[in-house]
This record gives sequence, C-alpha cells and structure tokens, in this order.
Amino acid sequence: MSFEVEQLTLHEQFEQLMQSSDKIAMRDFLNDQNISDVADLINEYPDYEAQIIANMAIHRAVSVFKILDVGAQKRIIKELPSFKTAELLNELPADDRTDFLEELPKEVIRDLIKLLDPEERKVTLSLLGYPEDSVGRLMTPDYVYVYAYDTVEDVFATIRKFAKNSETIDVIYIINERGELADDLRIRDVILAAPDKRVDELLDGRVVALNVNDDQEHASQVFKMNNRVALPVTDDNNILLGIVTIDDMLWVANEEFSEDMQKIGGTEALDAPYLDIPFFTLIQKRVGWLIVLFLSEMLTATAMAYFSDEIQKAVVLAIFVPLIMSSGGNSGSQASTLIIQAMAVGEVSLADWWRVMRREVFSGITLGGILGVIGFFRICIWHLLMTHGVIQDLYGPYWLLIAFTVGFSLIGVVLWGTLSGSMLPLILKRLGADPAASSAPFVATLVDVTGLVIYFSVAYLFLRGILL
Amino acid sequence: MSFEVEQLTLHEQFEQLMQSSDKIAMRDFLNDQNISDVADLINEYPDYEAQIIANMAIHRAVSVFKILDVGAQKRIIKELPSFKTAELLNELPADDRTDFLEELPKEVIRDLIKLLDPEERKVTLSLLGYPEDSVGRLMTPDYVYVYAYDTVEDVFATIRKFAKNSETIDVIYIINERGELADDLRIRDVILAAPDKRVDELLDGRVVALNVNDDQEHASQVFKMNNRVALPVTDDNNILLGIVTIDDMLWVANEEFSEDMQKIGGTEALDAPYLDIPFFTLIQKRVGWLIVLFLSEMLTATAMAYFSDEIQKAVVLAIFVPLIMSSGGNSGSQASTLIIQAMAVGEVSLADWWRVMRREVFSGITLGGILGVIGFFRICIWHLLMTHGVIQDLYGPYWLLIAFTVGFSLIGVVLWGTLSGSMLPLILKRLGADPAASSAPFVATLVDVTGLVIYFSVAYLFLRGILL
Repeated sequence: MSFEVEQLTLHEQFEQLMQSSDKIAMRDFLNDQNISDVADLINEYPDYEAQIIANMAIHRAVSVFKILDVGAQKRIIKELPSFKTAELLNELPADDRTDFLEELPKEVIRDLIKLLDPEERKVTLSLLGYPEDSVGRLMTPDYVYVYAYDTVEDVFATIRKFAKNSETIDVIYIINERGELADDLRIRDVILAAPDKRVDELLDGRVVALNVNDDQEHASQVFKMNNRVALPVTDDNNILLGIVTIDDMLWVANEEFSEDMQKIGGTEALDAPYLDIPFFTLIQKRVGWLIVLFLSEMLTATAMAYFSDEIQKAVVLAIFVPLIMSSGGNSGSQASTLIIQAMAVGEVSLADWWRVMRREVFSGITLGGILGVIGFFRICIWHLLMTHGVIQDLYGPYWLLIAFTVGFSLIGVVLWGTLSGSMLPLILKRLGADPAASSAPFVATLVDVTGLVIYFSVAYLFLRGILL
Repeated sequence: MSFEVEQLTLHEQFEQLMQSSDKIAMRDFLNDQNISDVADLINEYPDYEAQIIANMAIHRAVSVFKILDVGAQKRIIKELPSFKTAELLNELPADDRTDFLEELPKEVIRDLIKLLDPEERKVTLSLLGYPEDSVGRLMTPDYVYVYAYDTVEDVFATIRKFAKNSETIDVIYIINERGELADDLRIRDVILAAPDKRVDELLDGRVVALNVNDDQEHASQVFKMNNRVALPVTDDNNILLGIVTIDDMLWVANEEFSEDMQKIGGTEALDAPYLDIPFFTLIQKRVGWLIVLFLSEMLTATAMAYFSDEIQKAVVLAIFVPLIMSSGGNSGSQASTLIIQAMAVGEVSLADWWRVMRREVFSGITLGGILGVIGFFRICIWHLLMTHGVIQDLYGPYWLLIAFTVGFSLIGVVLWGTLSGSMLPLILKRLGADPAASSAPFVATLVDVTGLVIYFSVAYLFLRGILL
C-alpha cells in the first residue's frame, strides 16, 4: 500500500487526501513536503489555499506563506480564522511581515497589527516607519549579537539561546555597551577557534554595514561586492538596528527588473503581478503614457501638414515616410535600452557621457550608412522592375534623386535616433529622474517628429526645382 | 600622525603610499580595507590595478579579483608575473575560476590551465565541460559532507578540518557510501544538538537539490522559493557533485536582466559591458535586427504605394499616417514588454494565454477608444481653427468623415497592437524561442504594416465615393 502511495504524484496524493478529509493524514503529508512544493500546490488549488496553510505546523506555514504572491497572501489572511491569522503574523519574520503589510490598505493594516503581540507590534510599527524601497523595510531585528569581551564558549551559549529566532547564524554581530556596531564575525571562525578565546581576538576590524535609509538597490550592490550572506543595518549614529539577509536581495533584484522593464515598455510600474492587477488599474497605469505619446505624435500630423504641398507635388515622398520614421524609432529604442541597462547594472555612469556620445555618433553613422545603402539599392531595383513593366511606375524619371534622398535621410535619421536614444537616459538621470522613463515608445516618438523634418529637408535639398 | 592619516580619504592615503613606494606600508594598507573599497580603488586607478592585486595577501587578492569586471581581470592576468597568476588562479574558488576562464579565447584558457595544480586542473576541466548557463558552471566542489552515522562531534571535527576551503559551512551535506546525496543539515541544527547525537537523528528527509544540467535561471527560482543559502548539485544518478551558493544568484539575476533588456531593445545579448565591448562587435550585435526590421518595414512602402492613388486624391490622409502607425506601435511595445516581464518573473505562463488575450482585447478597445476620442476631437478643433482662418484649411468639407476615419482607425490599430504585442511573446515561447526576442521594435514593425492596411480600409469605408 505504501508502495502504491509513493508511485502517485504529489497532486494525486493531495487530491486523495482532500477527498478523504482526514485532517491528520493531510497535516502529515503537508509537513513532509518541501515548502516550494507546498507553494506549488497552493497555486494549483487556489480553492484550498487557506486550508493548506491552516493544516500545516505553524513554522512551516510561515515559510510557505512568505513565498506566495501577494494576491494569494491576501486571500488566505481573509479566509483564515482570526486566531490562525494572529499566529501566522506573529510567527512571520519581521521583514516578511512588513513586506506583506505594506501591500494592504491602511484600515486592514491597522486591524492586523492589533493581532500582534506587544513586542512584535512595536517592531512592525517601527519597520513600517521607514520609507518604501529603503533598507529599513527589509530589515529583521532577529540576529545574534555578542560583546567583544565574550569568549567563544559564551558565543555558543548565546547562539543556543537565540538561534531559533534569528534569521541567520552565519554571521554574529559584535556591539559595545551603547549598542554601536563594532564588528562582525563569521560562524566558521567561531567554530575554528578554541573555546576559551575571547571574541576580540578573532576580529579583523573590517565590517561593512548598510544604513537604514539606504536604497534597496544600493544594498543589492553591496551584497554583490562583499562576500556575506547577511549585512548589519545601522542608523546614522552607528547603532545596530537589525540585519538584512542575502535571500531578500533576490526579490529586490526581481522587483527592480520588473519596474525597469515596465517603464521601458512605456507603462508606469505596476507594483503587482500582471494577472492580479484590477483591470482599471492596469488601464490607468498604461493610458497615461499612451496619451502623452499620442499628443506628442500629433506634431507629426502638424509636420506632415506643413509639408502637404510637397506631398501633393510628389506623392512618392509620402510612400517612404513610414520606413524612414520607423528606422529612426528602432535605432533610438535600441540605443536607449542599451544605455538604460548599462546604467541599471552600474556599467555606465553620468561621467561616461562623452564616451557614450562618441560611440553612438560612430554607431549611428555606421548603422545609418548600412540601412541607407540598402534603401538606396531597394529603390534602384524597384526602378528596374518598374521600367520593365513588372510593377507600376511610381518613381518616374527622378528615381535616382529619390534613391539619394531616402539613402541620406536614413543616415541622418538613424544618427539622430541613436544619439537622442542614448543621451536621453543620461539627461534624465542628470535631472534626478529615473533613466528607465526614457522608454522605447518615448524615444520613438521623439525621433518620429524630427525624423520627418530631416526627411523633408533632405528631399528639398535633392529635389528642389525638379519635383518640388 | 596616525590621527592625521585617519583624516585622509582612502584615495589620498592610497596616492601617498603609491608615491612613497613603501611596499610593506602599501600591503598593510590594502589588507586593512574592505574588499569592495579595494575594488573601487582598482576601478579608479586602472594603471595600478595589477600592482594592487600583487601587493595583497593572496586570499584577499582573490576576493577582490573575483568581483572585478572581466576587462580588468583580463588586464591584471596579463600584467602579473606568471608565478602570481598561478597563485591567484589556484586560490580562486572553482566556480569563479570557471566563470573567468569561459570569457577568454581558447588558447589563453589552455595556457592558464597549465598553471594550475593537478587537482585544481582536474576540477576546472570538468566544470568547463558543462554547458554555458548551466548550474554546472556555477558549482563549486568545496563543501563539507558527512555520513548519516557520524555524530555531532564528528561533524565539528570535519568542519574544523575542511571549513577553510569550503565556500559555506551554513549547510552540511549528508551522503552515503556511494556518494549519493541523502540529506542536508543546517549548521544551526548542529550547534543546537548534543555532541553525542547521531546525524541521522537530526535529519528531516527533505532536501532540495539542483541537477548539474539545470538552467541557471531555474536555479535562481529554486533559491527564491527555498530558504537556503546554498543548494547541493547532483547528476542524474543523485551523486553529489558540488554546491551552488546564493551569492552567485545575484550575478545570474543581473545577467538575465541585462540579456532580456538588450533583447527587448532589439539588440542581441552583448555578453559584455557596453563600454568594454569592441566597436565593431557592438555594431554587429545591433545591425542584424535593424536590417531585419528595415526589410520588414519596406512592406510599409509597398503598402503605401498600393494606396498611392488614394493619397493622390486625398493628401489629407497621408497627414495622419505617422500618428496612426505610431499609436499602434506604442501600444504594442507596451503590451509586449508587460507580458515579457511577467513571463520572466514567472507571473504568466503559456497556460494563461486565454486570460491574457481576454485582458488585452478589453485593454485594446479601452485604450484605443480613449485615443480615438482624443484624435476625433483634435480634428474637430483644428477644423474650427481652419474655418476661422487661423490656420490653412486642409480637411475641406469632409472634415467630419476624416475625423471618424481617424477615430475608428485608432481603435482598430491600438487593439491590433495590444493583441499582437501580448500574444507574440507567448507564441515565441510556445515555439521554443526566447519571449524577449519579441522586442519593442519587432512588435512596432509588425504593427506598422497592418496598421496602414487598417487605416486605409477604414478610410475607404468612410470616404468611398466622396474623396476616394
């Protein structure tokens, strides 16, 4: 029998247990699984999500709860009986609790905070006091600290006493009587040391700390550059307030990534998974930029109207308008995402603007030149087909001049596209705005209007007195 | 005197020491700094980079070396005397060494591998044998393992013996006689246990392992969903081959982010920092997509040529071509980046295609409707200005029909844009391609051509027999 059960997939076992409604068997089953597998079950069977959480040992329920997405977390909290909610919230590490609470409306936060023990309530309220996206919001006050005069044996005693509640014991923190951070110590050095050694003999005086008001993105950089699984967080007076663990950084990286991508696509940051966000919030986040871009693009209609006499005289010019415009837009989008990405990972900074500009001028000329040559020959080939009667003749006797117009316009438009696409993120940064706001659509729009002007100016140069 | 030195910034101290060329003072100074500060110094003073590395204690030099960017690493290896290079490479953790070597040309790899000790050489060659972007490349064989029959005291003895060389001792691995992974054990549970307890009494039978051929992106997900700072790596027969530590995941996340962004911008993945990549490689990575897009955009010229009679009859239609096209392109870019981002972080999967499609149909109609109304009124207002002689009259007596044409075209084009923008990443995924390849420029191009057809069809509907 037990053999048979093992042959079943997790899902089949789960469904069997659900039907049998044997609560004890269910609890045993859930406690035997990896937390990531339980999280998968919850995502597969949303109808049972609250029951699954309610049926697990509380410390396991907490581990599952904290990796669920906010939508599921909210629904579970709503469905659980309030004594279960209280248990869950009290067990949840302080940093994950802050993270969850900050997604909720103010009234709900107030109700939930009432469920907390006095000690946890104090911690939560203080963490919620730090600005969003600050290190303070990621911090947990559950760490192990010792004093410099402690012995290695004392350290072990402290660990045995507090390890259960601390997020990590990989790093131990040394503070002085005023609570100021003195140093940190890796557990490996403690284990390797003789039991009667004093802590201050093991210290190297090198400690990297985060400030509680630091930006989370900065914290992520510090983790990358320092070989630590946890970093201490201090206030401006070097008082140790808590620690941040490296696993939170994976979530920070994810969030930064999502925000930057959404902005590049010309949306405001959604702050919630695409499928969970209410329809009208989604529209609201998208329509703003679309309207701004639309109003700016109206300038193309104004520009086109300005050149309407030329178009009337030579309809052939209108034919290439979309091609020229989109080439500028494409090269601009390409340049801007390259620079936004390089800035996001710290490869390019404001000080590099001149190097970027030089590179993009040469890139623009080269890329524009390549497209210009292709465009030139395209028109020549079509002309051949037209004169042989394969297709209708549109270019007339001035096909060569039209080919030159298109070719040179492409160089100009692509150069302008790469140049404005690459400089815009740097300019936004200089003005204190987010470089990612120079989205691909934004750059494309900027380039479209000027692209038209470049095109018709080149046309005027080549065709004045002939077609125009 | 010492007080004065403390007042100086790191950079000033460093410059003083460089001028004094007191090697011992320099070594002391460098050994006193955080590795991230030394890395900063190297970035600020590229002329001294090899000297800085050469002047540090080897285990510190290694910590600095591994967080430098590949460009600096290459230059340093070139400049260092070969005995120093050998020392550095041998000390470098196996995973960071693989990471560095894979950036170099084959001949250089061969020469450098000759510098390694036989043991390290064997490890490196085997790691280099795993596919790029696989977990194997991130793996380090330096971990602590024990057997189930060991006691807690044995575990401590093993740690004392091997901890120096292992990447982390936060997690200990339990294997059987055949080398198969049996379980893992957190150091905190070892410390909390009585010394004579056997390891198998502490085990919970739950272990999450990565397969050596797993994708690095998958590994990053597993880390996010399981509360571990290190995960064991096994082959298909469950033999423990090594471990991967969570700090590598921050670099993986960064790389995935950069690649996705670059693809969305319509560039191939650069695989190197923007400013370091040679100019012609940069052009090569960019020009491919630009040419493909340019050739596709030529279809717009074909479409425009097809409608040239209509344009000839009503030049006013040409005026709104850029506006209509770009609105489709913008809404398409927006939709595609939203979906690519949601897929990248696992919020949307192929199975959700119908939910996404439904959302985007309604979004397209709503967004298109809003832009359509704005466009409609824009033309009405301009008409008023024209009839009062403020600007030149272009629309003529049929201004209302033109306004309707533009308004309804916008609904159609925006709907088509959001729909194809959102479905394309899902279709690419279904075909086994990278969703991020449906770049903003790619979607814009796709939408441009069809946008023209929609516009002229709507125009034909409203203006047939009147203007056309």
